[in-house]
This record gives sequence, C-alpha cells and structure tokens, in this order.
Amino acid sequence: MEDSAPRTGRSMFACLVGASQLLGVTSVVLTGVWMGHYHGGFAWDGSAREFNLHPLCMVLGLVFLHGDAILVYRVFRNEAKRNVKLLHGIIHLLALIISIIGFVAVFDFHRAAKIPDMYSLHSWCGMSTLVLFCIQWVMGLMFFLFPTASSWLRASYLPIHVFCGLVLLVMAVGSSLLGITEKLLFSIESSYSLFAPEGVLANILGILLVCFGVLLGYLITKEEYRRPPNPEEESLSVHFKTLTEGGSPTTP
Amino acid sequence: MEDSAPRTGRSMFACLVGASQLLGVTSVVLTGVWMGHYHGGFAWDGSAREFNLHPLCMVLGLVFLHGDAILVYRVFRNEAKRNVKLLHGIIHLLALIISIIGFVAVFDFHRAAKIPDMYSLHSWCGMSTLVLFCIQWVMGLMFFLFPTASSWLRASYLPIHVFCGLVLLVMAVGSSLLGITEKLLFSIESSYSLFAPEGVLANILGILLVCFGVLLGYLITKEEYRRPPNPEEESLSVHFKTLTEGGSPTTP
Repeated sequence: MEDSAPRTGRSMFACLVGASQLLGVTSVVLTGVWMGHYHGGFAWDGSAREFNLHPLCMVLGLVFLHGDAILVYRVFRNEAKRNVKLLHGIIHLLALIISIIGFVAVFDFHRAAKIPDMYSLHSWCGMSTLVLFCIQWVMGLMFFLFPTASSWLRASYLPIHVFCGLVLLVMAVGSSLLGITEKLLFSIESSYSLFAPEGVLANILGILLVCFGVLLGYLITKEEYRRPPNPEEESLSVHFKTLTEGGSPTTP
Repeated sequence: MEDSAPRTGRSMFACLVGASQLLGVTSVVLTGVWMGHYHGGFAWDGSAREFNLHPLCMVLGLVFLHGDAILVYRVFRNEAKRNVKLLHGIIHLLALIISIIGFVAVFDFHRAAKIPDMYSLHSWCGMSTLVLFCIQWVMGLMFFLFPTASSWLRASYLPIHVFCGLVLLVMAVGSSLLGITEKLLFSIESSYSLFAPEGVLANILGILLVCFGVLLGYLITKEEYRRPPNPEEESLSVHFKTLTEGGSPTTP
C-alpha cells in the first residue's frame, strides 16, 4: 500500500505523527513545569515533592509512551513484523515501569501524609487502567511475542488486544484529566475560578492530552495507515476469514 | 451477513446491546437519585436545584441518547437506510435539545449565585464537546439527511463523521467524569476520603459511564455488527475504493 499510496497521503501521515509527538512531548514538559514551578519540584522522600512524580510518570508512561508503543505499528508498518512486535513490547514495558513508579510515588506520599487511598473516582479509574494495562501486556507477551497459544486462538484474540489497547489509552487520558481536576481543586480551589495561571496551564495540559488521544485514535484506526499484510499474513487472513464467517483478522 | 451469522453471534449482540441499555438507564437513574436524594431534587429557579438538572440532562442527552443514536445503525442494520438515518438524526436532535437545557441550567445557576463560568477543565471539555456535537449534527444533516453535497464528498466525509461521533461520545463520558469529580470535591470534600455513601454512589456512576462508553465503542467498531451493504451501496463501495486507493467507505 505504501508504494501505491499518493505522496500527499504519506506527507499527511508524517505530519499527523509529527503533531502527535509534539503534543505528547509538550504534555510531558508542561506536567514537569506545572509540578516543578508551582509545586516545588521532585524528590523521593515521602513529601509532596514525591507526589509530584505521580502526574509526571503517568503522563510520560501511561499516556505518551503507551500511545507511542501502539503507534510503532503504523510508523514502521513496512518493517519486519517480529522487530516491530519487539519494539511494541519494549516501549510498553518501559511505560509500565514508569507508571508503576508513578503509582508507588503517590501511595508513598499518602502513607507519609496519612491520606486515605483509593477513595476518589480518579483513583478508581487510574487503578483499573494500570491493572488492565498489566494484564494486557502479559497477554500480549504470551499470545504474540512468545506465542504459546494456537494460531486460531491468537487470531481470535488479536482484535480484542487491539480494541483493549485503544480503550486503555483513552482510559489513561481520562484518568489524567480527573487527576488534573483533583489536583487543582485540592491546591488552588479559591483562585481556580479567577483563572489563576496555574489553573489555565493545567487546563491547557488537559486539552493537549485530549488532542493527543484523538490524534492517536485517528492514526491507529484509519484503514489507510494499517500494516499491509505480507503474503504469509494474507493466506492466514483468508483462512480465518473463512473460519469466522465474514470477520477478517485485524493487523495490529 | 445477518442471515449467515451464527445464532450465537446474534445472541451475543443482543446480550451486549441489552447490557449497554441497562448500563445507560442505570446511569441516568443513579444521576437522578444522586441529585434527588443528596442535593434536594430539581427546580427551574436559579437555585442549586436548577444546577441539579445539569448532570441529569448531560448524562441523559450527551451520553445515553447520543450513544443510542449511534447504536441504531447497528441494531437496525437490516432496516431501510433512509429510516435508520432519520431515527439517528431525531435521537441526536433530542440529545442536543436535552444537552442544551442542561447547559442553560448550569449557566443560569452560576449567574444567580455569581459563580464565574468556564474556568475549569470540566467546563472547557464539556463546552468543546457540545459545540462539536452541534457542528457534527448540522454537518450530518447537510451531508446525509438532506444531501446537498456530491456523492464523492459524502463518501469522503462519512469516515470522518463516524470517527468524530465516537470521539464525541468518549469526550461526553470524560466530561461527565470530570463533572462528577468537581461536584464531589465542591460538596463533600471532607467526607469523600472517608468513603461517604454519596462519594461511593457517584464513583459507581462514573464507572458505569465508562463501561457504557466501552461497550458502545465495542458494538460500534466491531466489523461483524456493521450494516451489510445493499447492492446499490456495494457498487458505490467499489467505486470509492478505486478512488481512494485501498480505503473502503465505512457504513455508519
């Protein structure tokens, strides 16, 4: 498809990927500036500065790297599938490690400050996202990187894996927005309604995260940007199309 | 596709649609109970009871009816397309009217209570969702219900319309979750961390809305549940497939 795709289509794809990376990096930087400039920076000492690592790690790991781990299937859609799978798994693992550090940071801070855990909608959504993200990573590893399941089972699970990956990205963005709202109402409730600079900055961060999620969603779901099947995948595709009566396996 | 689909596939579809309706109706009822039982019910007098109409209208209009307006394309996928289009447009119009009433209610309450508007991330996301929802409805009307655009333009716009519809549903769910968090932190901040019943009820409402969104997303994007093209659509499909070099027009 790449060879026959018009030049404008390729340019558009490059522009959209570039824009998504700009949005992602800006979001991470803005989170760093927010926590660094308005909340005293970072430390690992149980203080509020340890809490500050939480939003930074979540935006970097569970949103930006998570999104990019999915995006590699579109950006490197003409490279050897085995290598792309490996890269997909490695970036996901990195995202998972950073996300877990972010979770430990907030639980550590809560313990030191004697703040109860897991009572808010943000924590419920965030914890669900992380747990499902772990399950998704382990399942992906078992099914696709070191395939222990049968070909039929793998092909059946693939569309679910792809759908869940996108749902988890959306949940990560949503949980981040809930976290931004919580943090602002805890720290600047009185001046938030007066359009305090910190509130405006954090709101802009929220909007950037939404734009990142929408752009990633577009790049991932657009048929034109999917990985073109190679001859082996093609025969597999026909096989499973027959098996599933009309359903065609999706290339992640 | 419907005729050849296995009985189990049809039963699964019916179960999932039933579950989505149960989730949607429960969410609306739970919002009513939350505002009715914990916040004094509803009125149209500029008081906090007028504000209470805001969450109810948004969950009913911008989430539940919006989702169902999209779902009719899957549920009635074997009915005449013109009728389904009409139903899709009418439910969307109803969703739009109810959402606008919800917006008027909160602005009215803010004016009476001298609370500034549009400063929070919830308001930024919610307003963006409503404005884009209006644009989406008008565009849909122009392109598909009273088609003034050429067939080529309509077929080009269709995948964008479908993608934007799903994005707007996700944004509506996300904005509702932000609203729930805001309302809880404004009204029960001190007892929220002690797992006050109101907080738990509102958190459950949030999780139900997420489940509704995920289930709708699954039903809408699953290839098997798409509307089977009729012979006319088939020829149009081939035509545009050639034009767009590999992209096939999506049936909404």
